[in-house]
Amino acid sequence: MTAGIIGATGYAGAELVRLLKGHPKIDNLKLSSVSYEGDRIEEVYLNFYGVVSEQLVKAEQVIDESDVVFSALPHAVGEQFANICWQKGRFFIDLSADFRFDDDEKTYSEWYGKTYLYPELHKKSIYGLPELNRQKIKDMASKEKLIIGNPGCYPTGALLGIYPASAIFDSQNSPIIINSVSGTSGGGREPQRIIHYSECADSVTPYKIASHRHSPEIERILAVMARSGSTEKTDISAPGIIFTPHLAPMNRGILSTIYIPLSEKWRITSSQKPQEDEIGCLVTRIHNHYSQFYKGEPFVRILPKGTVAATNRVRHSNYCDISLHIDINGSTLIVITAIDNMIKGAAGQAIQNMNIIYGYDEKAGLEAIPMLF
Amino acid sequence: MTAGIIGATGYAGAELVRLLKGHPKIDNLKLSSVSYEGDRIEEVYLNFYGVVSEQLVKAEQVIDESDVVFSALPHAVGEQFANICWQKGRFFIDLSADFRFDDDEKTYSEWYGKTYLYPELHKKSIYGLPELNRQKIKDMASKEKLIIGNPGCYPTGALLGIYPASAIFDSQNSPIIINSVSGTSGGGREPQRIIHYSECADSVTPYKIASHRHSPEIERILAVMARSGSTEKTDISAPGIIFTPHLAPMNRGILSTIYIPLSEKWRITSSQKPQEDEIGCLVTRIHNHYSQFYKGEPFVRILPKGTVAATNRVRHSNYCDISLHIDINGSTLIVITAIDNMIKGAAGQAIQNMNIIYGYDEKAGLEAIPMLF
Amino acid sequence: MTAGIIGATGYAGAELVRLLKGHPKIDNLKLSSVSYEGDRIEEVYLNFYGVVSEQLVKAEQVIDESDVVFSALPHAVGEQFANICWQKGRFFIDLSADFRFDDDEKTYSEWYGKTYLYPELHKKSIYGLPELNRQKIKDMASKEKLIIGNPGCYPTGALLGIYPASAIFDSQNSPIIINSVSGTSGGGREPQRIIHYSECADSVTPYKIASHRHSPEIERILAVMARSGSTEKTDISAPGIIFTPHLAPMNRGILSTIYIPLSEKWRITSSQKPQEDEIGCLVTRIHNHYSQFYKGEPFVRILPKGTVAATNRVRHSNYCDISLHIDINGSTLIVITAIDNMIKGAAGQAIQNMNIIYGYDEKAGLEAIPMLF
Amino acid sequence: MTAGIIGATGYAGAELVRLLKGHPKIDNLKLSSVSYEGDRIEEVYLNFYGVVSEQLVKAEQVIDESDVVFSALPHAVGEQFANICWQKGRFFIDLSADFRFDDDEKTYSEWYGKTYLYPELHKKSIYGLPELNRQKIKDMASKEKLIIGNPGCYPTGALLGIYPASAIFDSQNSPIIINSVSGTSGGGREPQRIIHYSECADSVTPYKIASHRHSPEIERILAVMARSGSTEKTDISAPGIIFTPHLAPMNRGILSTIYIPLSEKWRITSSQKPQEDEIGCLVTRIHNHYSQFYKGEPFVRILPKGTVAATNRVRHSNYCDISLHIDINGSTLIVITAIDNMIKGAAGQAIQNMNIIYGYDEKAGLEAIPMLF
Repeated sequence: MTAGIIGATGYAGAELVRLLKGHPKIDNLKLSSVSYEGDRIEEVYLNFYGVVSEQLVKAEQVIDESDVVFSALPHAVGEQFANICWQKGRFFIDLSADFRFDDDEKTYSEWYGKTYLYPELHKKSIYGLPELNRQKIKDMASKEKLIIGNPGCYPTGALLGIYPASAIFDSQNSPIIINSVSGTSGGGREPQRIIHYSECADSVTPYKIASHRHSPEIERILAVMARSGSTEKTDISAPGIIFTPHLAPMNRGILSTIYIPLSEKWRITSSQKPQEDEIGCLVTRIHNHYSQFYKGEPFVRILPKGTVAATNRVRHSNYCDISLHIDINGSTLIVITAIDNMIKGAAGQAIQNMNIIYGYDEKAGLEAIPMLF
Repeated sequence: MTAGIIGATGYAGAELVRLLKGHPKIDNLKLSSVSYEGDRIEEVYLNFYGVVSEQLVKAEQVIDESDVVFSALPHAVGEQFANICWQKGRFFIDLSADFRFDDDEKTYSEWYGKTYLYPELHKKSIYGLPELNRQKIKDMASKEKLIIGNPGCYPTGALLGIYPASAIFDSQNSPIIINSVSGTSGGGREPQRIIHYSECADSVTPYKIASHRHSPEIERILAVMARSGSTEKTDISAPGIIFTPHLAPMNRGILSTIYIPLSEKWRITSSQKPQEDEIGCLVTRIHNHYSQFYKGEPFVRILPKGTVAATNRVRHSNYCDISLHIDINGSTLIVITAIDNMIKGAAGQAIQNMNIIYGYDEKAGLEAIPMLF
Repeated sequence: MTAGIIGATGYAGAELVRLLKGHPKIDNLKLSSVSYEGDRIEEVYLNFYGVVSEQLVKAEQVIDESDVVFSALPHAVGEQFANICWQKGRFFIDLSADFRFDDDEKTYSEWYGKTYLYPELHKKSIYGLPELNRQKIKDMASKEKLIIGNPGCYPTGALLGIYPASAIFDSQNSPIIINSVSGTSGGGREPQRIIHYSECADSVTPYKIASHRHSPEIERILAVMARSGSTEKTDISAPGIIFTPHLAPMNRGILSTIYIPLSEKWRITSSQKPQEDEIGCLVTRIHNHYSQFYKGEPFVRILPKGTVAATNRVRHSNYCDISLHIDINGSTLIVITAIDNMIKGAAGQAIQNMNIIYGYDEKAGLEAIPMLF
Repeated sequence: MTAGIIGATGYAGAELVRLLKGHPKIDNLKLSSVSYEGDRIEEVYLNFYGVVSEQLVKAEQVIDESDVVFSALPHAVGEQFANICWQKGRFFIDLSADFRFDDDEKTYSEWYGKTYLYPELHKKSIYGLPELNRQKIKDMASKEKLIIGNPGCYPTGALLGIYPASAIFDSQNSPIIINSVSGTSGGGREPQRIIHYSECADSVTPYKIASHRHSPEIERILAVMARSGSTEKTDISAPGIIFTPHLAPMNRGILSTIYIPLSEKWRITSSQKPQEDEIGCLVTRIHNHYSQFYKGEPFVRILPKGTVAATNRVRHSNYCDISLHIDINGSTLIVITAIDNMIKGAAGQAIQNMNIIYGYDEKAGLEAIPMLF
């Protein structure tokens, strides 16, 4: 089994390289890079020296020689390669945003400033969040679908935290607030001022407030799930969200602190401040609900009550950790989710999708135990 | 003029030492420490070597020999020294929580697990947030009040962000959400696991969710202002808040991202997503409102529209930076505030209070220009 | 095959847990902890939640139930357990300094302030640096030796850099200078001021100058190798060293910059500054020498000429990277070595030793590809 | 008094802006920038918002309107402006390397790849290291010299550590080794991969081994002082040096660990390892020697015996801290120096030079007390 990676020298591409090199079902890697064509990947990433020595070739050659193709190109660049794969009947797992919007070209265009080159291709794609869409991913081949739109890093942490709350939250009430903090690797490998060391070390900075492209991605999937748990229809109303990303001085990780107003059935409605044990009971109910919801999921950990999710507890792993809390008045659920943005938020999730498609053990190649540091 | 600092070897104490050493009106410093009595402060903080050489003596001696006394002791330890100062007619500026709750002993006891030793003293105290309470601070001597309860670090950033919104926010609606991220110096000088380097570097961690002691402090002051702009009455309802602190790998700084639902009069109510220029207009109105509100304030900066507050822009200064944003639906105001937790959040604000009490230039000793790194 | 870890809740212990959990030849783990006896390891390290759930028991029980025992206890605590293992015929791989000095009790006592409890045991131990001592480690069982003294973190990086230079350096001349920078995890899990976040972040600090305990360890092994390449004799003269450790704000990694005066045969002796190509030639000769020396070594990478070793290129791996440079006058070899102090400098090397003893693939369980971040 | 800064928007320029804004003798600032001409500096550095609002104009205009001109341009760009200043009789304090080599154009050209445009100007310059050259700086005007070549950041820390050792070190023996670690701000404001956050955080990296441009600068000044304590002659032999810079994940600071072989008169020559008290005596002698040497220096602190220099003890100050140590054999002096690379290593030293030239208090504008964090 040969896996190809287009755009292998960006951070997400290199993470795919590292993980696929250790994948028990992958025998060969084929890698492409426009900037470094002809070099070996170990010359670009000295950490790979002597371990990963594949030469960087053209994207077309990668597609020709691979059984499955991962694309780690920037947005709006890879659609042509998706098309070639489609023609050849290859699975194409795209880490860019190009295939995250199904046939909703309008939203895609509004946020990414580009129309679809091959509109029909987008109907052949599945949003690759396995915890939400596993069956659809399994059935891809039989349904004549070959393309995975791998979720964005922020949406992964946000959706996994919000998803089980659909039966709990107060849809009439104020929006769900998603306050997220990301490490710098999400900004990619190209030097730029916002992640220049002296500009971002020892500081926390919000950015793209109310204007980050992951906002419509989260809203769209919530809308879909509001109707049917399916990602195929988008014509219904959904909870509003407010999503604010922040940059923190750390290499990896996304922590999302999500505020979800509880529906009347779930919130504590006494006129006085609730007692500690009332809060405790409510946390237990919600904890049970989430635990049940994610029962058997290989990569979601509902943390024990009284503990808190943090990015250093999922470092270098494909886990999404979730901790559950109730505000002091018993009316708002506070969900904390933590992921490694490069793994569950990018390369790891892409491989998880591949594992599902091919019927491999879903954890194959993704068994790294989280490291505290 | 002699300034005394009780508890000079903790981080807040040492920051007072550094700032007061350079204060143009302070001629002498008197410093106390229980742990290091007899040593010179430069032996404890080698950065002070050759520059600040005062010996550490007993608290009682500091009080005897000082015109104004700053207390940087832990909570529930310094009340006795406040009493001595009171007896001697000395101003006592307390950086602990002991005098932040006025005569509301019930709330204080509930959160700090201790009753007041000298209940009458607490009626002699003023909550030392100058932007809210300047006149009261000015009038202290004439009103027979001698004690400043210096605000907590988180409440300073939160209240300065929320305070001007009292005429704007929707008091009927959901709570105000305060999502804050702090540097490690807020945890003090004593080693503990949560701020052990390997445990907190390269990671972001929420803590004390729905249970941080700064929560009731913020709520209480909001309740007071809800009624009268005065801090003296607390018997009215106020906006609920949800406050979630996080720890980030940086030495200094608190960034608060505050979500304030807008009242009907202010929010955009069209049934469709508002246009960009509608949002822009609303931001402008709110920007004007905040700018007007803080007009002439020496230490509050309303940042230009389109820019974002960040902790590295106030580093080592007494500024509170505020940036203003509107969510994509035009219904929620997002206020970002940034302070240096050790300066505006502790020692700087204490000195600002002293400057007001003594009629000095409010900026005396606090003119450090923020440093990007 | 069951592996036991005594002292499993310190950082080195937890790293052994993580690595052995993923080791293809280890079926069961037995873990001990004095402080957390009765808890499960995932309660101490939340990153292990749901992945490593073994209960922490007494050291004696671990020894009883294990085939091989790793000890990650502090110095001067584990000798009794080594003795029990010896009695039972178990291999004992000790990560402390207790068995690094062979029968040289005098040096050990001088630096560690403690005498040997079981002097005869120390003759049964091997210094576990495989690149130096592989054959001795292989032969342990047949030579009635059961104890590995796993090298210190600094000595590992220093010795691998100096070892091949024995034929090159000028023994008559000045000492070899080893200037090392370590991450904070080397300081362990117990909070202490020197690795309290606010005290060590954003700063570099030398410590224990001319007094670090790894100094005699390095000197002793160099003395042994000076004579015979064997670690068994210590009665000969050896190159003097000067070893200066520094603490840097990073979690993992040790970078050693080693200055080795070249012998007359190797150095450039022209009276004028050498030309660039003369320097280049010399670098090539030395590069060939080192490459030859470490030919076939699974965990030593001699980096390409013109590149430089750095700690982020060996992160989370068992590699020791080495880059080679010549000073501008052609008289001093500058060797840079980089290791992950927790892996090649501790837990990884211990497992490498186990692999050799049992005849497993030396890379088993240690195949993690280095991660740039 | 008006100070002009050419190249005000780089990091060194902005640091000059910040420090000169608070200088008691400077009434006005004039600032230039090519990239941001027409903007206000507070628009480029939001930390300056509302505090430093000067507009950025052309360099020529700055020169016209200023009494003293600081140049923070890159190397090989500012010579023309030095010439204009010379014509107009203005002092020109250059933070680039252009005037650090006096009339030694050969060395300058070899390392900076450029010849002098105005060779005669270079004879009008003084190497602005006040602790070495104070009298020459004072006498500049009377000697018809108007140009300061402000020292490099690494050379400042290195030379201040080595300078007093001229009577102590063994000139016959091996080179002096300078192992330095710098923060990232030394790399400037332009994004580049080596100081891209994810590439340098949580890691230490050596760079430009045996090829850094500060190497010849250090050697040249040592050669000058070897002869006469004067910087005017360069035709004598001097101690060889080996200089290895490293990059560490911190914003500011340079720590230099300097290994100086002691001359026979100073080193301990007993055939056995020296006793602790012998070492102690030698440290005391050397400590006295250095203390005497720098007696009265306002910005050099010889730290107490038993303590160690570290970059966080000089943060944001103009101090150079020096700690003194002897290796275990009594033959090598280990000098540790710490500076803030942006202050004593750049902007602060430039202002110190201005203070001397104009006869101001040498500490004017430079009295910031070091901050631990």
